[in-house]
Parts: sequence; structure tokens; C-alpha cells
Amino acid sequence: MPYSPEDKKRAVMRLRRIKGQAAALERAVEEGTDCKSLLQQIAALRGAANGLMAEVLDSHLRELFGSAKETVAVREARDPDEEIEALMKTLRTYLK
Amino acid sequence: MPYSPEDKKRAVMRLRRIKGQAAALERAVEEGTDCKSLLQQIAALRGAANGLMAEVLDSHLRELFGSAKETVAVREARDPDEEIEALMKTLRTYLK
Amino acid sequence: MPYSPEDKKRAVMRLRRIKGQAAALERAVEEGTDCKSLLQQIAALRGAANGLMAEVLDSHLRELFGSAKETVAVREARDPDEEIEALMKTLRTYLK
Amino acid sequence: MPYSPEDKKRAVMRLRRIKGQAAALERAVEEGTDCKSLLQQIAALRGAANGLMAEVLDSHLRELFGSAKETVAVREARDPDEEIEALMKTLRTYLK
Repeated sequence: MPYSPEDKKRAVMRLRRIKGQAAALERAVEEGTDCKSLLQQIAALRGAANGLMAEVLDSHLRELFGSAKETVAVREARDPDEEIEALMKTLRTYLK
Repeated sequence: MPYSPEDKKRAVMRLRRIKGQAAALERAVEEGTDCKSLLQQIAALRGAANGLMAEVLDSHLRELFGSAKETVAVREARDPDEEIEALMKTLRTYLK
Repeated sequence: MPYSPEDKKRAVMRLRRIKGQAAALERAVEEGTDCKSLLQQIAALRGAANGLMAEVLDSHLRELFGSAKETVAVREARDPDEEIEALMKTLRTYLK
Repeated sequence: MPYSPEDKKRAVMRLRRIKGQAAALERAVEEGTDCKSLLQQIAALRGAANGLMAEVLDSHLRELFGSAKETVAVREARDPDEEIEALMKTLRTYLK
């Protein structure tokens, strides 16, 4: 779960924008828009996905390891080494 | 415009999948799904955007420079150097 | 500092390989090797840099937040929020 | 082969810089420099590899498909579809 209600709202806004970009691209493909413009729009969609990733990653790191009281309490039960392993598994897909 | 009707259909299918992934992620964020799972889903969405990029790029290169007769005729009017410059402008966003 | 002497040794080995790849590429360019082969070699060099990044990142996360005793002691003096901010600053360059 | 002697010289300069960055990183790892600084330096090295990739790719596209006379002559013998396939094979490693 993203760290705060504001984080959550921002993530939802970003996801709606991504859906909108995908829908616009779908129309563009069906209308036969030239590839050059499609490539730019796909690059923008990917940029939006990367921005979302950065934001959720930031929330996740703060939730797991940050100093905020509410999260310090929650994470007592967790094994930090396992959390790091799970996190690295996802990050490695970005480092190929 | 993607190279063939098959290319077009494949691109539309990919875009629908991306929309579905974004919608599923939106629900997941609203339901408070843990960040670990969100990060995996975002990585998958980005992978789908990259797959689409590769496909449209492949179509674009064939359209611009391939040997198929219909595209050879179309591109007579184009300046290949300008096309390359436009293409590199998009590709550079992937090479930062 | 990478987490353990083994980590350190592995990082040094990876860096030597990267130096060797860059030296081989320099010779290849000077000898006029075709671009296709250069592009493959550059992709391999970049893959090696990404592999190193994943490894040092893994060490860093364990050092900062892992359960190993020696690092738990060291990090008492640190502000986890600042560490996360610094880490995200670097990771964002991968998420553009 | 990169497109022109200037392209070649620039590629060699970039590769020397990459070798220098890898050598500096090797020393930094051996001296126990903190991970945060290592991660920044690795990100810079990867940025340099991406910059080189963009440059060689640009040369390659101009060589294969550009309007310059010397390359138009050379490529008569080549199959553009095969060239595109080979190129996409490398680019796909960047689109994973």
C-alpha cells in the first residue's frame, strides 16, 4: 500500500493518465497514424510508467525502512532481508 | 501507420492489454495492495510498453527502409536523413 | 563500501571485465569493425554495467536496512529518510 | 564501421572515457568508497555507454539507409530486411 493517502491519490491519477494514453494510442493505431508519432506516444507512455514506478518505489522504501512512526510499528513483524530480496527481484528487471 | 493489417491488429491487442493492466493497477492501489505487488505489476506494464515499442519500431524501419514494394513506392517522396533524425530523437529517450 | 570482501572482489572483477570490454571496443572502432557488431558489444557493455549496478544496489540496501549485526550498529548514526532520498535520486536516472 | 572519421574519433574518445570511469570505479571499490557514491558513478558509466550506443546507432542508420552517396553505393549489395532484423535484435535488448 502506498505510504499515505496523498501518495495513493497521486498513483491513481498517474494510472488514469496511463489508461488515457493507451486509449489514445489505440485510436491512433486504428486511424493509421504514422509510426513516428506512435513511437513518440509510446515513449511518453513508458515515461509515465517509469514515473509511477519511481513514486511507488519511494513509498515502498519509506514504508519498509523510513523513520515515520506508523511504519516503524508495522514492520516489526517483517524480515528486512526478505523484503530486500523481493525488492531486488523487481529492480533487476530494470537492470537488464 | 504500422506496416500491415496484422501488425495493426497486434498493436491494438497489446494496447488493450496495457489498458487492462493500468485498470487493474488502479484497483490494486485503491484497495491498498502492498507495494511489492504493485511494483511487480508496474514492471509488467512497462514490459508491455517496451514490447509494443519494439514492434512498432520494427514496422517503422521496414516501412522506411525495407524491401517490400508497396513501401518502396511510398517513400520515394521522403528524405531518409530526416526520417533517421526523427527516429533517433525518440530512441534517445530510451538511451539516457 | 560494498557489504563484504566477497562483494568487493566480485565488483572489482566486474569492473575489470568492463574495462576489457571498453578496450576491445576501442580496438574494434579503430579497425573499422562494422556497426552491427559494435552495437552488440556496446549492448553487452551496458548489460555488464547494469549487472554491477544491481549488485552494488543489493549490497547497499543490505548495508542500510538489512539485519546483519555489523551493519545495524554502523547505521545507528544515519538518517534513514536521507538515505532513501539519496538512493532514489540515483534510481530515478534509471527510471526516465 | 562508424560513418565518418569524425564519428570514429568521437567513439574512441567516448570509449576512453568509459575505460577511465571503470578504472576510477575499481579504485573506489578497493578503497571502500561508500555505496551511494559508487551507485552514482555506475549510473554515470551506464549513461556514457548509452550515449555511445545512440551515436553508433545514428551512424549505423545513416550508413544503412541515409542519402550520402558513398554509403548508397556500398549498400547495393545488402539485403535491407536482414539489416533491419539484425538491428532490431540488438535494440530489443534495450526494450526489455
